[in-house]
Amino acid sequence: MEKIYLDNAATTCLDKEVLDAMLPYMTTYFGNPSSVYSYGRETRLAVETARKTVARHLNVKPGEIFFTSGGTESNNTAISAAIRDLGCTHIITAAIEHHAVLHTVEHYCDGNTVSHSLVKLLPDGHIDLKDLEQQLASQERKCLVTLMHANNEIGNLLAINAVSALCRKYGAVFHSDCVQTVGHYPIDLQRIDVDFISASGHKFHGPKGSGILYVNGNLQIKPFIIGGGQERNMRAGTENVYGIVGFAKALDLAMSHYEKDAANIKELKQYMATELQKRIPSVTFNGDAFGSCLYTVLSVSFPQTERSEMLLFNLDIHNICVSGGSACSSGASQGSHVIAALNTPSDLVPVRFSFSRYNTTEEIDHTIDTLAALI
Amino acid sequence: MEKIYLDNAATTCLDKEVLDAMLPYMTTYFGNPSSVYSYGRETRLAVETARKTVARHLNVKPGEIFFTSGGTESNNTAISAAIRDLGCTHIITAAIEHHAVLHTVEHYCDGNTVSHSLVKLLPDGHIDLKDLEQQLASQERKCLVTLMHANNEIGNLLAINAVSALCRKYGAVFHSDCVQTVGHYPIDLQRIDVDFISASGHKFHGPKGSGILYVNGNLQIKPFIIGGGQERNMRAGTENVYGIVGFAKALDLAMSHYEKDAANIKELKQYMATELQKRIPSVTFNGDAFGSCLYTVLSVSFPQTERSEMLLFNLDIHNICVSGGSACSSGASQGSHVIAALNTPSDLVPVRFSFSRYNTTEEIDHTIDTLAALI
Repeated sequence: MEKIYLDNAATTCLDKEVLDAMLPYMTTYFGNPSSVYSYGRETRLAVETARKTVARHLNVKPGEIFFTSGGTESNNTAISAAIRDLGCTHIITAAIEHHAVLHTVEHYCDGNTVSHSLVKLLPDGHIDLKDLEQQLASQERKCLVTLMHANNEIGNLLAINAVSALCRKYGAVFHSDCVQTVGHYPIDLQRIDVDFISASGHKFHGPKGSGILYVNGNLQIKPFIIGGGQERNMRAGTENVYGIVGFAKALDLAMSHYEKDAANIKELKQYMATELQKRIPSVTFNGDAFGSCLYTVLSVSFPQTERSEMLLFNLDIHNICVSGGSACSSGASQGSHVIAALNTPSDLVPVRFSFSRYNTTEEIDHTIDTLAALI
Repeated sequence: MEKIYLDNAATTCLDKEVLDAMLPYMTTYFGNPSSVYSYGRETRLAVETARKTVARHLNVKPGEIFFTSGGTESNNTAISAAIRDLGCTHIITAAIEHHAVLHTVEHYCDGNTVSHSLVKLLPDGHIDLKDLEQQLASQERKCLVTLMHANNEIGNLLAINAVSALCRKYGAVFHSDCVQTVGHYPIDLQRIDVDFISASGHKFHGPKGSGILYVNGNLQIKPFIIGGGQERNMRAGTENVYGIVGFAKALDLAMSHYEKDAANIKELKQYMATELQKRIPSVTFNGDAFGSCLYTVLSVSFPQTERSEMLLFNLDIHNICVSGGSACSSGASQGSHVIAALNTPSDLVPVRFSFSRYNTTEEIDHTIDTLAALI
């Protein structure tokens, strides 16, 4: 069997239709969208049409969508703006956030001008909302709450409206890293009251190097990347036209067949879990795997044996692509900060399987056969 | 005649060969380069090969090259790092810098912790090196000097080695925005002693959304975009693999036929200037147009008449793409801050013609015919 790609939470393949939508802007239409002549206006139109598409799917105004180079830049922009422009001097986040949030928060909290605290986690990895409320209620400083909509390693979904309600009650700014949910769930920001959300194109079959930041229209913030007047003075630098077009096309496609894809992928995940339990009864699942959880992610802990320690390596040899932790930190062999934060026994071997609409039952069968042979 | 594109300093068309080099990473090889399995290692290899290619052309170590989302991000990274990590508290720059430098400097100089000053300009638009030396000699604060290698509007080339020598003499950090020269000139950083240079792929037939920052190996700086450990902890965010591959391929191609291209383009520029003077004797040229100047840029001032005021608009109607100022600020009708800084009489109409290897003598002839009819 050829390569089996079960690491779709790390990155996804570019949809052929997305590439087709991008190609005209890599060949015929190359003008600078900030130019005044018609040739630039063609690419300007493409950028603004993309903005409208994204805004429509998130049910916000086009003027609230800003294109960036990806989820990490979006997270950096939101967090730095909350401190610099919105007067936040305390940040509440969680130990299981992506490093794009966690390291950024730590960076800005170096001095005593800005402090931060971590919200407690429940045993299943969900945010302890009582602790969040206590922290918000007792905090005298203006707070930024930054909590991801879905965890990229264990898949847990945030009770985003409950968090939003607490933020509003206590006057906190609320940012949510939605990199794992935009393009995977319908997200209606008229029903979710947030200040900022971040998303990344390559997580839902769009291009790498493209992302968005939603900024609530009530907020006045300054750019993170400074220079020319692009993105209405909010993000300087010549627009990555094909990246922007690709982001919008990928979101459009994802939403057009969301229900079918979500149902199929959910079934694959459930199938894999059931079969795993049958074949390797000692497996456990991390996080709230079958509760409030991404349908795209299944985080499994395998018992530690002589052979399971080399599990990722051996799966790789068998052409099966999965992750231990998140790709963004997997170069380092430090293990996963998320799994560690959940107090998972350290003698287990965590593996994240993450699915897309391109995966098949045959691939899952083959993966489980390989795993059973390896354990 | 079809569209005539004479705005190559704003952006360039993507070279077909560059697109061909990028496409495999938009189709077959989509793995996350930070993943540990072989599938990620294929894209990791592509990124590292690109880094080696860029390093070879600039004659530096691969570890001194960092991939970014473009020239603006590179400029932001260098300037913020010089202040935050290298202890610079005074910035010397020039009024004719690109907004990606000028606005960034102004942003960091809001308080009195960090100050800045502008170096004087000579009548031809060149930096007054005596003034630069006086400022460096009298400044008690540690300085960052940020001066662009070539001006994007008038084309003036910086006496970069003279500036470098002054920076070294007075212990200043030296950053140069080389967005208009990388890919257009051989740049040997063993012969130019700088701390940082910025470059952008889409200025030399590479992809938009791709850039590099060269950071002198002697320096220790922190990332500007914070998060995962990509780019050896220097630039977080999933690598834009196709952008990176495209940047390197475009640089490789540009350098492989640099001498021929440069000679042809220089001839086109000279031809246009000569023919313009014949047909519209009242034209003048901005900057040191035929001295130390980009061969790719000709900045022309036309006499103000009823018809020349609408010149850009009318050229557009005739399918000729040129700029008034830089594209990055041309959405605003404020005129060019560069032309204004040169004390050009305000009753002249400045137009920048900028050339690439795809332009022809016929296009220049047609443009001049159109201009002569319009003036």
